[in-house]
Amino acid sequence: MTVVKATNIHWHEGNITREERWKALKRTGCTMWFTGLSASGKSTIASALEQVLVEQGADCYRLDGDNVRFGLNKNLGFSAEDRAENIRRIGEVAKLFADNGSITLTSFISPYIADRDAARAVHEEAGLKFYEVYVDTPIEVCEERDPKGLYKKARAGEIKGFTGIDDPYEAPTKAELVLRPADDDLESCVRQCVEFLAKQGIVKAG
Amino acid sequence: MTVVKATNIHWHEGNITREERWKALKRTGCTMWFTGLSASGKSTIASALEQVLVEQGADCYRLDGDNVRFGLNKNLGFSAEDRAENIRRIGEVAKLFADNGSITLTSFISPYIADRDAARAVHEEAGLKFYEVYVDTPIEVCEERDPKGLYKKARAGEIKGFTGIDDPYEAPTKAELVLRPADDDLESCVRQCVEFLAKQGIVKAG
Repeated sequence: MTVVKATNIHWHEGNITREERWKALKRTGCTMWFTGLSASGKSTIASALEQVLVEQGADCYRLDGDNVRFGLNKNLGFSAEDRAENIRRIGEVAKLFADNGSITLTSFISPYIADRDAARAVHEEAGLKFYEVYVDTPIEVCEERDPKGLYKKARAGEIKGFTGIDDPYEAPTKAELVLRPADDDLESCVRQCVEFLAKQGIVKAG
Repeated sequence: MTVVKATNIHWHEGNITREERWKALKRTGCTMWFTGLSASGKSTIASALEQVLVEQGADCYRLDGDNVRFGLNKNLGFSAEDRAENIRRIGEVAKLFADNGSITLTSFISPYIADRDAARAVHEEAGLKFYEVYVDTPIEVCEERDPKGLYKKARAGEIKGFTGIDDPYEAPTKAELVLRPADDDLESCVRQCVEFLAKQGIVKAG
């Protein structure tokens, strides 16, 4: 627990700056935006990366369906408009976490280039780093995995507008990092992420 | 900068738990929800508290109009529905920050008990501490300060639905902490917050 002296009450006019915050907390924020088909391995990689970073003392937080869809975005459905708003809000929240100095991981299919570019723009306008991580798993592999049976339902027409089946996935053309979990094992994918963060100066390679 | 060994890639199945995260990062999250009239001193106190905590190494982040209204909530207006949605989203985002282990400060008028109680509920349902901080400044004092001239405009009828003038402020009946900046100076108010956090076991008194 942080020791705080109630006798050490000093501040300056106005708000603490990002630079002051990151320096005091000895960290650098950014957002790694994982994108890829359903069952491509986004969340598996992001979850493992989060654990590896946090266990070594890095402030890393992951936004995903579990903590966003049933909370912040619970009033959104699956219309085109609501899907865009879903990604927009996630981009804005990621920006706040990155501003606080967290290595922020987002793990959503986010199939449209325009939506991802908008998330990138809100970061860059705020002077924050945004890294697109394309989890490039062939649809045949995703469909064979199909852990939740969603591809099967989509093929049977029970789910409409499913990415990769009857709705497009617009692959990134300028991703900062491309991972291929169909070829590389999970440990290798996580290591590539850590090495990428070290290269960007977000963490220091040990 | 955090040193991360790419050769130290270990994780377990499933996601990191909150307990594991807080233990690894040596911190405890919570939300301090500042509420009070316009010009009551909410943001001044929260900003100073944020500086004091961060400079001493505590992870503290503040959500306020500056970083929320023009980002996450930029598509909301001032209808009753949009005001409720504004506070709902802030409550959900505060919950995510608290989950990450931040001492999360929110600084919004948030005049309605029902909206504040809903924000409290999303925290408590997630097993997170939510502390309502009532900045109890008499409206006469707020109106005399009136740094942005808003009370003047409201009295002149140029702003409609202004809290305390022609829209109610429902004072908290169960605030965990009540601050009275009309009687106590800023340093005293900040100290009361720090002492409160120490008493709750969120920080350790130095």
